[in-house]
Amino acid sequence: MSQDKNQEATALPALGRRKFINTAALASLAGVAACTEKPSTAAAPATSAPAAASAAHASNASVHLKPGELDTYYGLWSGGHTGDMRVLGLPSGREITRIPCFVPDALVGWGITNESKKIMGTKADGSLRYTVADTHHTHASYKDGNYDGRYAWINDKINARIARIRLDYFVCDKITELPNVQGFHGIFPDKADPVDPKINYTTRVFCGGEFSIPLPNTGIDDASKYRSLFSCVDAETMEVRWQVLIDGNCDLVATSYDGKLAATNQYNIEMGAKYEDMMSAERDACLFFHVARIEAAVKAGKFKTIGDSKVPVVDGTRGSNKDPKTALTAYVSVPKNPHGVNASPDGKYFICAGKLSPTGTVIELTKVLDWFEGKVEKLDSVIVAEVELGLGPLHTAFDGRGNAYTTLFLDSQVVKWNVEAAIKFHKGDKAAKYVVDRLDLQYQPGHLNASQSETKAADGKYLAVGCKFSKDRFLPVGPLHPENEQLIDISGDKMVLLADHPVRGEPHDFIIFKRDLVRPKQVYALDDFPLAIKDAKESGVVRNGKKVTIKMTSQAPAFSLRDFKLKKGDEVTLILTNLDKIEDLTHGFAIPKYNVNFIVNPQETASVTFIADKPGVFWCYCTHFCHALHLEMRSRMIVEG
Amino acid sequence: MSQDKNQEATALPALGRRKFINTAALASLAGVAACTEKPSTAAAPATSAPAAASAAHASNASVHLKPGELDTYYGLWSGGHTGDMRVLGLPSGREITRIPCFVPDALVGWGITNESKKIMGTKADGSLRYTVADTHHTHASYKDGNYDGRYAWINDKINARIARIRLDYFVCDKITELPNVQGFHGIFPDKADPVDPKINYTTRVFCGGEFSIPLPNTGIDDASKYRSLFSCVDAETMEVRWQVLIDGNCDLVATSYDGKLAATNQYNIEMGAKYEDMMSAERDACLFFHVARIEAAVKAGKFKTIGDSKVPVVDGTRGSNKDPKTALTAYVSVPKNPHGVNASPDGKYFICAGKLSPTGTVIELTKVLDWFEGKVEKLDSVIVAEVELGLGPLHTAFDGRGNAYTTLFLDSQVVKWNVEAAIKFHKGDKAAKYVVDRLDLQYQPGHLNASQSETKAADGKYLAVGCKFSKDRFLPVGPLHPENEQLIDISGDKMVLLADHPVRGEPHDFIIFKRDLVRPKQVYALDDFPLAIKDAKESGVVRNGKKVTIKMTSQAPAFSLRDFKLKKGDEVTLILTNLDKIEDLTHGFAIPKYNVNFIVNPQETASVTFIADKPGVFWCYCTHFCHALHLEMRSRMIVEG
Repeated sequence: MSQDKNQEATALPALGRRKFINTAALASLAGVAACTEKPSTAAAPATSAPAAASAAHASNASVHLKPGELDTYYGLWSGGHTGDMRVLGLPSGREITRIPCFVPDALVGWGITNESKKIMGTKADGSLRYTVADTHHTHASYKDGNYDGRYAWINDKINARIARIRLDYFVCDKITELPNVQGFHGIFPDKADPVDPKINYTTRVFCGGEFSIPLPNTGIDDASKYRSLFSCVDAETMEVRWQVLIDGNCDLVATSYDGKLAATNQYNIEMGAKYEDMMSAERDACLFFHVARIEAAVKAGKFKTIGDSKVPVVDGTRGSNKDPKTALTAYVSVPKNPHGVNASPDGKYFICAGKLSPTGTVIELTKVLDWFEGKVEKLDSVIVAEVELGLGPLHTAFDGRGNAYTTLFLDSQVVKWNVEAAIKFHKGDKAAKYVVDRLDLQYQPGHLNASQSETKAADGKYLAVGCKFSKDRFLPVGPLHPENEQLIDISGDKMVLLADHPVRGEPHDFIIFKRDLVRPKQVYALDDFPLAIKDAKESGVVRNGKKVTIKMTSQAPAFSLRDFKLKKGDEVTLILTNLDKIEDLTHGFAIPKYNVNFIVNPQETASVTFIADKPGVFWCYCTHFCHALHLEMRSRMIVEG
Repeated sequence: MSQDKNQEATALPALGRRKFINTAALASLAGVAACTEKPSTAAAPATSAPAAASAAHASNASVHLKPGELDTYYGLWSGGHTGDMRVLGLPSGREITRIPCFVPDALVGWGITNESKKIMGTKADGSLRYTVADTHHTHASYKDGNYDGRYAWINDKINARIARIRLDYFVCDKITELPNVQGFHGIFPDKADPVDPKINYTTRVFCGGEFSIPLPNTGIDDASKYRSLFSCVDAETMEVRWQVLIDGNCDLVATSYDGKLAATNQYNIEMGAKYEDMMSAERDACLFFHVARIEAAVKAGKFKTIGDSKVPVVDGTRGSNKDPKTALTAYVSVPKNPHGVNASPDGKYFICAGKLSPTGTVIELTKVLDWFEGKVEKLDSVIVAEVELGLGPLHTAFDGRGNAYTTLFLDSQVVKWNVEAAIKFHKGDKAAKYVVDRLDLQYQPGHLNASQSETKAADGKYLAVGCKFSKDRFLPVGPLHPENEQLIDISGDKMVLLADHPVRGEPHDFIIFKRDLVRPKQVYALDDFPLAIKDAKESGVVRNGKKVTIKMTSQAPAFSLRDFKLKKGDEVTLILTNLDKIEDLTHGFAIPKYNVNFIVNPQETASVTFIADKPGVFWCYCTHFCHALHLEMRSRMIVEG
């Protein structure tokens, strides 16, 4: 088996008119997204086939809920650069909430309260370590191959952080920064333990490091010395369990239903530092990780550590993993700069999309396991199909009826194709028609996902697509356009476009699942908060030298302290418990000129710490409408000069 | 005329069973919003009359656009605590963009780029002065009584700031902090000059100060010494032209079409510090400002200044304005704790809603002008109607056909009533039926506005209502509920509920106008930016001691500098010009671990300044999807230790 970087295709079928896209061609594609498509007009909006357009109109009833009607699916969406998680209702496409994670949120007081600052992480001076993020991927915890409603995770690419969301309260409760990782891109939870069959639920989250850097990161110039890491985070403790040193880079991540395999697609096996270098090889890879062997190696002490990090790092490079029977990793070759690897809901396949090759690659997982057992001679024979789909294939979703749906960035389409038919075609049955349908999108689709797609319960009802450009699809709002999330009905043979939704950049990935899979709580328990002031009578001002603690409660339409006095220079910690117990009765608390605003939900406690550095009268007021006397709900902070 | 704080009603009609709500009754209303309404179920969502519910279904076609179909109205919405302005398309209710103003935005780089930091304001150490806000009201510039598409304004209540939005590029270009104001609440632009008829467009924005404080703000305890200010900001320079010292407080603001009058409703003429005190008087006031006289007084030097502020402050207190013929202000008495004052599109009336009184008060503006001329004996005779509407009236919108629509917070309804019929009823014609229709809302409505409502072109098509509680109207997402924006068809005799939209708290006010009233630009001009790098060849690294300037351009799929070197400790200013010219081709620029992310739209230039305090290799990457090779679009920052 060739392990050369520019290895030849070993399983490459004839590709017809659409060959790999070469360097020169792509370099000239500057602005391709915005100039190769002729925008539709408002009067004649559908660039899709007329049949699809009229069918869309007929399908509207299912998308457009009557006032008060509840959605049937939740969507968890990456919030993009706002660094939060979006929660949508589907099929309406309505955004119900945003869950702050990596970036401060001035409504909730995320990054302002002491409790949220502890989760986000602070510098020595108490200020936030980071205030920007670039979230890409979100996935939720599994049990028995379906979501179990415990947790979701989301990544920050800029600062290599992973956040966990509790799906009972819909809040972020932990953030972990991955050591020695830059450009943390794909994440995926495991679906079972590779060894213990009783653990049929998520206990690990895998994280792909996209950019190669010096390890440890000194400022050396020679990019050939850079490497990337693949990381495993504990789902409960959120500590990094182990990392794998690899050749090439990581992009997205997929996991098998049996827990034995994780994989990442690699678009830069060349380990180039410039885009021309990154696209020089005709094939890159889908890199598999043998989870049980890696953990055995860690247990056996076969690891090193890097720099200040104590996380064990095992060696998953090509050179150290030549013997399949002991290999921790396997680099399956796939065509040019693949973007996306997805697990089919039947548990059989991982599918990679070529991006700079018009192909979809189907890898059979039992064959990968066979290779690790030494039963397969050529690794690339685990590829059971490599078929032409269209230009710029990126991501793949599934309907649970054997069909895959792949976005074609350059063709601005989604293509529906049958996986078993593709395998037959690849085997030589040229009569096998694997492409079932195509639908034009507006414009240049990136991620897509179908309802329940990446679970054993894929139900083939709705497909959502995140289009990177909206151009003329919404009223103009200046130079920064929204992106366009399109919803498609995939319940029939033909795909039907149902709706366009504008969205602030740049959400990337998302999941869609049935509403009964989560059981949200809507009122907190006082005991969940160590600082809770359980009775308004405990309110007061406690002074200890210059350190002052203000204990306060809220009950509409009043705060328990109508005023409180401080001296200039005091270090003040203000603790507020919302004693209102009724669902939806949230209060806010703002202090003018002191840069303080946060909310307390029913039975929640939050605290802020600040220096009383400005003398004067400051009307602290309720910022979250609560009562007919909401405007009158205030407390007066008097800072004596 | 009585000027007592607890003055008796001079124009109060019989109110039937619904009297003023007294202190004891309201104090026990804690949680009223969440407990007095029986939530509907998902299966039977409509608590409105069955007729309305079925009619809503029939009207859906007009709300639910086909994919690619453009909305016919823009909505400019206060973004609430996210401190930005939301731009919606209507009737779809889709949020097309958010315009960052008062709070950092990690997508755009607002609060990160040097250009945005200059607009937001910084402390001596270069950090942002404020990172929280509480936006309430947004209004746009007028010409000939309709919006002219130049500017919009939005307020921050927490820190007494007003931001201006350019409606060509949909960006914030100026922020002004009002001196000696706390709890800046209502804003309204003028619609014409009070003296010069040629100036038939907006040149002033009026701002209401809600909280009374010591002037200047020393920490004195005695609240009877506190006062509030009403401010006038220049629409072009955004400087504060003048302020008026008043008795009582300011809440919302309205302006007359002839430019002569501005007014604010006062809910706290008692100037109380606790909510019981603030609601002790049975009547409060609608306070009128005679703009021309105020400006003449300023010109004549009849003003003082407060503390460090140089802004002229004229005396508008009751005691100093007893003679109508010289008065700068007029305090018209209106029932208990009014919340909202709105100008009817026919130019004749201002309408106040009682909040703690079930009444709407109609004030005739020609009579107010007559009072200022000494032609009216009793000021309160300018009230031409004071009629019962329902419990908790807050805000009023108009359809241009003589009807007003007022939200009833406690009744959880909107009431449609005919203004002229109300005037007849008030005059004594008890057969005049002024209430035309009522519609139940879900739940507890605050602001509302109708398409073109506050212009001479009010068209009576759509009414949007911001409901403060959503309770059971959307899928549960933890303790923090979204609010519920409801869209209502008001084109017929009966109001018809069309759609529910969830929204992140707490948007408050908004305006809705026809899409042809703005003319957005979607590509910048290079010359608009003094730092623009107009040719990729000008790229490079310029060192001046420890000060380093990086000049870079972006053109998909590459930055002009593929790498650049720094020394630890350098003070770096990085300037990036996006040379891509194609609409919608925005690039992002992130530096891992350096807390930098921002975008450059087509032909835009932005800059950031930071200290290179961490040695290592840092892959700066494009964060805004731009091209098939977007992932490969990077520049390598090498910081030598």
